[in-house]
Amino acid sequence: MSRKPKILISNDDGYQAKGLVKLTDLMRQIGDVTVVSTEQQMSAQSHSMTIRDPLKVRLLEKDSGYVKYVCSGRPVDCVKFGCQYLLPEKPDIVVSGINHGSNASVNVIYSGTMSAVVEACMNGVPAIGFSLDEYSSDAYFDHIDSFIVDFTKKVLEDGLPKGVCLNVNFPKFSEGGIKGVRVCHQADGHWEEKYERRVDPFGRDYFWITGDFVEDVLDEDSDMNALRNNYISIVPTQYDWSAYKFIDNFKSWEK
Amino acid sequence: MSRKPKILISNDDGYQAKGLVKLTDLMRQIGDVTVVSTEQQMSAQSHSMTIRDPLKVRLLEKDSGYVKYVCSGRPVDCVKFGCQYLLPEKPDIVVSGINHGSNASVNVIYSGTMSAVVEACMNGVPAIGFSLDEYSSDAYFDHIDSFIVDFTKKVLEDGLPKGVCLNVNFPKFSEGGIKGVRVCHQADGHWEEKYERRVDPFGRDYFWITGDFVEDVLDEDSDMNALRNNYISIVPTQYDWSAYKFIDNFKSWEK
Repeated sequence: MSRKPKILISNDDGYQAKGLVKLTDLMRQIGDVTVVSTEQQMSAQSHSMTIRDPLKVRLLEKDSGYVKYVCSGRPVDCVKFGCQYLLPEKPDIVVSGINHGSNASVNVIYSGTMSAVVEACMNGVPAIGFSLDEYSSDAYFDHIDSFIVDFTKKVLEDGLPKGVCLNVNFPKFSEGGIKGVRVCHQADGHWEEKYERRVDPFGRDYFWITGDFVEDVLDEDSDMNALRNNYISIVPTQYDWSAYKFIDNFKSWEK
Repeated sequence: MSRKPKILISNDDGYQAKGLVKLTDLMRQIGDVTVVSTEQQMSAQSHSMTIRDPLKVRLLEKDSGYVKYVCSGRPVDCVKFGCQYLLPEKPDIVVSGINHGSNASVNVIYSGTMSAVVEACMNGVPAIGFSLDEYSSDAYFDHIDSFIVDFTKKVLEDGLPKGVCLNVNFPKFSEGGIKGVRVCHQADGHWEEKYERRVDPFGRDYFWITGDFVEDVLDEDSDMNALRNNYISIVPTQYDWSAYKFIDNFKSWEK
């Protein structure tokens, strides 16, 4: 690529998140950067979007080869608005994150960070989601800098297969360091919730949710296993959810 | 199944929606029914859920073998709360809908109706989403009654493969009638949005979104094609988004 690549960044932790600032700094080393971030924390907002209310968007920062907007909507709104309104043409890549918290296993389904990536993918734009297995708002990200730059450059050079985006999860910093990179599938798991009932001053019930992740299948090639063993996990991820293997199971239903 | 099956119903059009009332009536012919519906219209809320605020849940109706609750959260909250708090044990099936509007193609990704189904599937509960290709709040549903009852009974008898749920879309009523049932894959497509800029009385920009669906691949075996030709489409749908076919493409990234 002879000209500077156009890079769109989004996330779901809000425009002030340390992970977004880090990702922005790294991407500015590579290309012309447009950031469209959510106003607030949007964790677990998945692929939701704003259709009944108008979006409010404001310019926050502007520098040579760099602009940053804040959007009142969801991560999906940020990517749609960035790709289809703000930028004169589609970006060369969309990167999302760095999420404070892992999006391995089924967390990809709840994740706002990954919804931005999936949305870009549907629009034919190569896209990568970066997440760190560490929830702290002050998480340490410096140990993954070179990997993020490397993966982004690879995708900018080679593109991605049609309909495929990447879900990249990093182990949190440890003294032993990162052991390597593994290309994985999404681990099978689910969340088990508990609801704590409370009663408001007017006698009405309300419920706080807490949850534990349960890994249903322990599997050497899964993203959870890679992370657990201090490897970076890369899951090629698709937005075609058809269970092709099982279509024939239902052929007898046809009439 | 000798005892009456336990059926959990949710949707994303709110507790008063005609499609939900219809689905409830049909399911009460088959089993013991618990409805947990959203308070409001939750279209395009996808797999988002309530984690930072408490849920409010109120009992709306109660009859023999039938209870109906309204929940302040999203469709995913309804299913989680129904399966993990309200019911003493997991239901035999979760059905969602009948959605006012098709959830064929990539609409499955934005859909609150289908998120309820995918959530149940992750929790190991057989689940079907029913949607009608007609957005009107007064849509006509009577032409699909027998199919809904039939499909639900089939799944109650035979179960579903692990990790697979069903996305069922019905053509809207037409004089020619429904031609048949097709087991399909999800059509490839995306939404192209336009943003209409307006200025509020304080001089600040805001943007209304409108969009057109674009079918990227015209394909005989797709759900869009079935609907277009007045067939019911059934897409076996999975929550494992790993693009297994492409994992080898990235093996050279491993270190």
